Amino acid sequence: MKPSRRDLANAVRALAMDAVQQANSGHPGMPMGMADIAEVLWNDFLRHNPADPRWCNRDRFVLSNGHGSMLHYALLHLSGYELSIEELKRFRQLHSKTPGHPEVHETPGIETTTGPLGQGLANAVGMALAEKILARRFNRPGYNLVDHYTYVFAGDGCLMEGISHEVASLAGTLKLGKLVVLYDDNGISIDGQVQGWFSDDTPRRFEAYGWEVIPDIDGHNPEAIKAALVSAAADPDKPTLICCKTVIGYGAPNKQGSESTHGAPLGKDEIAAARAHLGWSHAPFEIPAEIRGEWDARVAGAGWQRDWESLYAAYRNEHPQLAAEFDRRMRGDLPAEALAAIDQLIADFDRDGATIASRKASQRALEVLVPAMPELVGGSADLAHSNYSIVQASRDVRSAEDGGNYIYFGVREFGMSAIANGLALHGGVLPFTATFLVFSDYARNAVRMSALMHARVVHVYTHDSIGLGEDGPTHQPVEHLASLRYIPNNRVWRPADAVESAVAWKCALERRDGPSCLAFSRQNLAHQMRTPEQIAAIARGGYVLLDTASDQVDAILIGTGSELELCMQAARALAAEGRAIRVVSMPCAEAFDAQPIEYRESVLPGWCRRRVAVEAGVSGYWYRYVGLDGDVIGLDRFGASAPDKVLYPHFGFTAERIAASVRRLLA
Amino acid sequence: MKPSRRDLANAVRALAMDAVQQANSGHPGMPMGMADIAEVLWNDFLRHNPADPRWCNRDRFVLSNGHGSMLHYALLHLSGYELSIEELKRFRQLHSKTPGHPEVHETPGIETTTGPLGQGLANAVGMALAEKILARRFNRPGYNLVDHYTYVFAGDGCLMEGISHEVASLAGTLKLGKLVVLYDDNGISIDGQVQGWFSDDTPRRFEAYGWEVIPDIDGHNPEAIKAALVSAAADPDKPTLICCKTVIGYGAPNKQGSESTHGAPLGKDEIAAARAHLGWSHAPFEIPAEIRGEWDARVAGAGWQRDWESLYAAYRNEHPQLAAEFDRRMRGDLPAEALAAIDQLIADFDRDGATIASRKASQRALEVLVPAMPELVGGSADLAHSNYSIVQASRDVRSAEDGGNYIYFGVREFGMSAIANGLALHGGVLPFTATFLVFSDYARNAVRMSALMHARVVHVYTHDSIGLGEDGPTHQPVEHLASLRYIPNNRVWRPADAVESAVAWKCALERRDGPSCLAFSRQNLAHQMRTPEQIAAIARGGYVLLDTASDQVDAILIGTGSELELCMQAARALAAEGRAIRVVSMPCAEAFDAQPIEYRESVLPGWCRRRVAVEAGVSGYWYRYVGLDGDVIGLDRFGASAPDKVLYPHFGFTAERIAASVRRLLA
Repeated sequence: MKPSRRDLANAVRALAMDAVQQANSGHPGMPMGMADIAEVLWNDFLRHNPADPRWCNRDRFVLSNGHGSMLHYALLHLSGYELSIEELKRFRQLHSKTPGHPEVHETPGIETTTGPLGQGLANAVGMALAEKILARRFNRPGYNLVDHYTYVFAGDGCLMEGISHEVASLAGTLKLGKLVVLYDDNGISIDGQVQGWFSDDTPRRFEAYGWEVIPDIDGHNPEAIKAALVSAAADPDKPTLICCKTVIGYGAPNKQGSESTHGAPLGKDEIAAARAHLGWSHAPFEIPAEIRGEWDARVAGAGWQRDWESLYAAYRNEHPQLAAEFDRRMRGDLPAEALAAIDQLIADFDRDGATIASRKASQRALEVLVPAMPELVGGSADLAHSNYSIVQASRDVRSAEDGGNYIYFGVREFGMSAIANGLALHGGVLPFTATFLVFSDYARNAVRMSALMHARVVHVYTHDSIGLGEDGPTHQPVEHLASLRYIPNNRVWRPADAVESAVAWKCALERRDGPSCLAFSRQNLAHQMRTPEQIAAIARGGYVLLDTASDQVDAILIGTGSELELCMQAARALAAEGRAIRVVSMPCAEAFDAQPIEYRESVLPGWCRRRVAVEAGVSGYWYRYVGLDGDVIGLDRFGASAPDKVLYPHFGFTAERIAASVRRLLA
Repeated sequence: MKPSRRDLANAVRALAMDAVQQANSGHPGMPMGMADIAEVLWNDFLRHNPADPRWCNRDRFVLSNGHGSMLHYALLHLSGYELSIEELKRFRQLHSKTPGHPEVHETPGIETTTGPLGQGLANAVGMALAEKILARRFNRPGYNLVDHYTYVFAGDGCLMEGISHEVASLAGTLKLGKLVVLYDDNGISIDGQVQGWFSDDTPRRFEAYGWEVIPDIDGHNPEAIKAALVSAAADPDKPTLICCKTVIGYGAPNKQGSESTHGAPLGKDEIAAARAHLGWSHAPFEIPAEIRGEWDARVAGAGWQRDWESLYAAYRNEHPQLAAEFDRRMRGDLPAEALAAIDQLIADFDRDGATIASRKASQRALEVLVPAMPELVGGSADLAHSNYSIVQASRDVRSAEDGGNYIYFGVREFGMSAIANGLALHGGVLPFTATFLVFSDYARNAVRMSALMHARVVHVYTHDSIGLGEDGPTHQPVEHLASLRYIPNNRVWRPADAVESAVAWKCALERRDGPSCLAFSRQNLAHQMRTPEQIAAIARGGYVLLDTASDQVDAILIGTGSELELCMQAARALAAEGRAIRVVSMPCAEAFDAQPIEYRESVLPGWCRRRVAVEAGVSGYWYRYVGLDGDVIGLDRFGASAPDKVLYPHFGFTAERIAASVRRLLA
């Protein structure tokens, strides 16, 4: 007898409750509650190929309520991905492919790392936007080369989070019609019945964003779910929210509908009761062959991919240049023209010796990169003309017929950054974001997720210090550089002039396995003279910019960004007093730390402990470079509202103070 | 002739455009656009006393779109606050009372520091909630002792930010009927016409939150504004959003309605044209006496306060105990019973030597504090039973007849933290928040604002390291302790056992001029034996817990939280090898840094450079204590999903590795 839809869904329920029980840790409630929805979506709608999880035209499936990871693992296992039952038995164990929350590079078929609520939804908005941009760029009559849906599971937690507002609002404005969100409206969050803290009229809210809303779907009725998913595709200009009424922990007779099913194993007795209640008589981790057969998507998946590949072969024949660009972009290779252009800009900056703000140098970089790199897609959180994120070749993704490359993100820093992660994960675009450095705070966990997911995202942060002046302490970053540097796998660049700014952009684009944060100044920065070797060394993150004596180093000054010029002035003053001073420019401490020890020793020799680091930010970070015998000239308090030329001396950032510190160390 | 309402509003416009021009920096567009609204609100509705900006029953006025600070300064100046015209001339200059964005302790009459968009609205929700809680607690028949409105100005930027969703949703659920938001619907943000990135149906959105929405008010029609403000008071259970259509830069004939008025001076020519257009013939910073007279609120304000004080005198007579509590709470003094209770708990923990999770110890602290401290009001972002933030004496603020003390914040970390700032700024309550440490990221800028505003807020962060185990890297904080410590004026406590946990709570409550972040473990922590002197020293932030020899120190181990016990084990092992080892417990590095140099030297003597710091977080932070000759055993990568007992050795957190590090230093 052919298994019923409910039998298929119960396989997911059983795997979820059994794996959580085995791990003695995890979240059975959501998988059991959303199993029927998942079954309909995966068996009747989702176009994917378990044998090739990276097939570029697959539908994307994002579990924004990532704590329900066992749902996703069960789906991947049952539909034929390379995720064995043994891995499910090792749920939440070290080195398994089934970590507590879905992680994009750990498990085949996982599209994004989720768990921090709301961000999966934001990633999905980025994926749907990437699809739209690429479709406009590459599709041709008869060739819907890029044509897939992005499906999201989201819970009450996702919808309570502020980021859900930012990205749902923007998705409506951007008319992302192929984004479909299935809302697990189970009325329960960790603290209990949500009515006490979440009484929104969610359908009305999403209608206000310009979404198509399908309310009141019985999330345990496959026909109703199916009809809703069909109707979701109807309007090509509106994202769709399907509100599914579900019972959390569905099938656990004594616990379902209660928060007790959310984040703990059901326990052996309740699992036995659930087996009886659901009519699921199989042993833990045992799935009958006929049920496996119904779930198996390998044949269908191979067919879908084969069809697409035929289409693509014909497309390549007819549009060889577009196909070559498509291939390159999906591989993530940079175009040679872009690298040549940025190298030329570095040479131009060096030759011209321009004294400009590094944010302006960043814009100059974008001016040469954007036309040469159609995949470079980004924008600002409503600060385009402060971040200098917009250039001549920028075209609005809402309206540009070829897909565009500029996103007006609006005042949505967190949403912007998490959308950028989704753009990067989708592939085919290389995203950048832009805001003031201080507002990296608003987006901080998304930057962390960029780093955790090895997402190639460039976060542009201008107004990088008290140098922004009159806007005052709410807008002046103090702790931000250090805090961003501490995010593992993140790279923070704080260039000292136009040349370093262009190199920072180049390094950020060339970095394939993680994000880069580029901190640029509002105010003008003096040009520094460099040899070709010094220019080449910028990419190492730290290098010797000046030795005032050829045979000796009495003291080392370490500077970044706008403070490097102060170090240079101090060094010259000290040299005039007969001191041998080295100045080290350190635009990216993490890149420097990744250099071989020999190189690092050549820049910061261990025998020289007279070291002074200078940065208009918290001093604590720099002790790892100057130690207990050195000094740090930093800012360990909030800034103030005044012109930057007043603030610098007010807070002690002067060449004279730096020189005095060195003299003390040398005394 | 009595000045017209428009004349009064034009005084604000003139001051704003002239001050911005004088500073050559600032934002004239919003003050000019909202001047008519402000004029009606301040002259016909706002109950306040310019002579006593701290009068506790004043209406609160919050400028959430804080870049329009000159609007607020003009209102304060004109209505008679101690803010002279000279201060307005010094707009955005060092040490003036008129910084670029409003700062709560810099200017009389400023209720909260704004500028980071959306947070002013969140602070206001906190203020309105404080009002509601205090009113329920203290009001008695015939005595509406606590009875004021909270008015907010907010712009498109505030409403795009995710935090606006979090706090508006919660304000609806909490039925904050005396919160009135005036939305500056001018259709312009920095990048231009918002329709391209903000196309929400905002009235519909706020209706979905359960708000009363008054749409389509002409923000330049005083009668319409007045009618809307009257109607806003009608429903006591619904917060009100008044959507005011305005023209940004209203009155500047060539620039109004354009983003060019937003963030730069209008320029001398346009200011001259605006003067002509508005019929404002007065010189810069000159306000005619009859206009001053209409604005002056000192007589009315003194009357309102006098009336309230009469009421309060009678109330005190009739309800002396309540009045005494009210006075104490508004002063911010802790009740003696609470201090006695926490001291007793410290003694109990020390006596019992309980091996419990520090989150559990925190709950024990709340169990004794909450009944003794009616002002202790807080809650969790939907993790009450993980953060252990709820206790027997907790009563929901939605329903408790005496106002309650527990807030179900829902999954809204940023909103929660910014609401807590508003609660603290209002006075009469001492707020706490709770979530997982990793999700401090979501709230980071609100913690920064707690610190910048010297707000007395306790942020409880549980699950403080890889020790949380199976939830994996998305949930395991690595960089968070260091990053939070770097926020100026913040205090981060990471207690090593129950005794230190209770002391941390005590220190956090006693701290009047800033926030404290308490990082607690999920897992059990071993009890440490201490002398009474050592217990007293915990509050110093760092202290000697163990010297294995009485006359010598070969090496120093510095540990925090769960890693302290590993340091103790390593010290004992090394002592058995004849080494003299000191173990320093450092629950709060910032508190330690604030100690006199003699004390710090007594704990970490400069001559002993063999130092090893151990913390399950980024190593970089600790070099300021161990220098270039020491070692740090930390975690400079993301964690992993596995049981904590597996993760600790996997990432090298073992007594053996610590001992080996010391042996290397001593070799």
